[in-house]
Amino acid sequence: MNRKERVTHLMQAGQARLVAAFEALDGQAKFKSHTWERPGGGGGMARILEGGSVFERAGVNVSAVYGDAVPPSLAKQHPASEGRPFFATGLSLVLHPTNPYIPAFHANYRYFEVGGSEVWWFGGGADMTPAYPFEEDIIHFHQTLKALCDRHHQADYRQLKEACDRYFFLKHRHEMRGVGGIFFDQLSPAGQGDWEADFAFVQDGIDTILPSFLPIVERRQETPYGEREREWQLYRRGRYVEFNLVYDRGTLFGLQTQGDIEAILMSMPPYARWQFAYRPEVGSAEAAALACYQPRDWL
Amino acid sequence: MNRKERVTHLMQAGQARLVAAFEALDGQAKFKSHTWERPGGGGGMARILEGGSVFERAGVNVSAVYGDAVPPSLAKQHPASEGRPFFATGLSLVLHPTNPYIPAFHANYRYFEVGGSEVWWFGGGADMTPAYPFEEDIIHFHQTLKALCDRHHQADYRQLKEACDRYFFLKHRHEMRGVGGIFFDQLSPAGQGDWEADFAFVQDGIDTILPSFLPIVERRQETPYGEREREWQLYRRGRYVEFNLVYDRGTLFGLQTQGDIEAILMSMPPYARWQFAYRPEVGSAEAAALACYQPRDWL
Repeated sequence: MNRKERVTHLMQAGQARLVAAFEALDGQAKFKSHTWERPGGGGGMARILEGGSVFERAGVNVSAVYGDAVPPSLAKQHPASEGRPFFATGLSLVLHPTNPYIPAFHANYRYFEVGGSEVWWFGGGADMTPAYPFEEDIIHFHQTLKALCDRHHQADYRQLKEACDRYFFLKHRHEMRGVGGIFFDQLSPAGQGDWEADFAFVQDGIDTILPSFLPIVERRQETPYGEREREWQLYRRGRYVEFNLVYDRGTLFGLQTQGDIEAILMSMPPYARWQFAYRPEVGSAEAAALACYQPRDWL
Repeated sequence: MNRKERVTHLMQAGQARLVAAFEALDGQAKFKSHTWERPGGGGGMARILEGGSVFERAGVNVSAVYGDAVPPSLAKQHPASEGRPFFATGLSLVLHPTNPYIPAFHANYRYFEVGGSEVWWFGGGADMTPAYPFEEDIIHFHQTLKALCDRHHQADYRQLKEACDRYFFLKHRHEMRGVGGIFFDQLSPAGQGDWEADFAFVQDGIDTILPSFLPIVERRQETPYGEREREWQLYRRGRYVEFNLVYDRGTLFGLQTQGDIEAILMSMPPYARWQFAYRPEVGSAEAAALACYQPRDWL
């Protein structure tokens, strides 16, 4: 297999394993498949579960697209590639749990080649968005990601964590959408890294998705909740929507490359709400949550 | 009064009249006031009603902002103004009714001066977004707007209607967010129109908001509905959210000029939802609605 095939295979195998794990965990709803082709070249398969007992929506999407000229959002990251052919493949995962005490979760790993196979890079990351943040959950999540980084010499947890804090920041709200994680546009600068080492990191990153998040789901899924917690969850999901449509580069890339609109917007929450100038009561759990949406050293 | 003062006064008087009319119509909820200042210069007042009997959310915002250098979204419309001072004032109105049979409604009228008082223009428009479109409602709405244009020699209904069809189009969905109305970036090209005539049109446009929409509210507000209609309403509101955050220039202008975030996002619906690859049943009222979200000559 060549590099493109190896990465595509990695993404597809990851999708199959993740889907099986979430379906088993949910125990109620099943994933549907939605395959799509991109007119300009390539396509993908979205797997989505809706209305489950644990997951109100879970989406795992794999795509592999290519074309004669890199789209603008990609040319920005690597200006020399403008007007040249590209290849991009990625795995993305979004979980919107039913219970407001379980955080939303997102991970994305992707691979690009532009203007030929010599110029390549891997991008990716994982982040968590609790409506009700628990310190032990956040620490578990960040510790698992730090351990991942520590297993690979080219990945510096501190750097990737800070990049995540910067990326998932809603400038217009002066707050993060959640409690961060790790994020990298290019694990090694385009075409300058050790391909095998970067591939191994991304493989390990995909393997780290379940251990970073499932213990948190298990810990929170039986917590009773009512109307108040549900409303706060929907309110915070409004921020998720704002981030995805205003800032998210994956969404922008998808819209620009005319990817499948349902696969691109799979990350949207099933329900969300907005309320004018809402401020949680001082001393409430919701007010405490707000304090967690600022960059912080969790470890 | 100079021109800026006259327009600002027009917007403020319009806000007071509209708020009084919607509060009377709702009969249950009251408007709250939220004033804000822009650090760079200027400010505004948002009036908002939430959780009413007729209106789940109604927002009427007036702003007047100025600064030393035009923001990028404005410089695009008038490149010669780049880096020069600007003044902008506007009235915007968004109605998200409770009953799914009453359309959502939006209107906005605005005035700009850039690089001095000689270069000015008026922008604006009004559009309607029904979840369940009724032909008689759409025709009433468009007829009222056509009559408005017919009273002013510089306003051509056909042109403004087509501009609206183009503007309120979600390229990524290949559909309009509603059934259109009128829209204009510049009623007369920047600095080239008859100021008094354009002012008179905008004044008339604001006066036309109530007669274009209230008869439709009165006709639909008692229509019984259930879970199905509510879910479709929330689904269509998802499109409203997508439009506002991906395409809406007022939102972009607000974010770029660091306007008050609550006032900018006042236009968001109180609740919205997304469902993966949803297609209404063939022959259903929802499928019929979809056919109305394409540009059409309604008169």
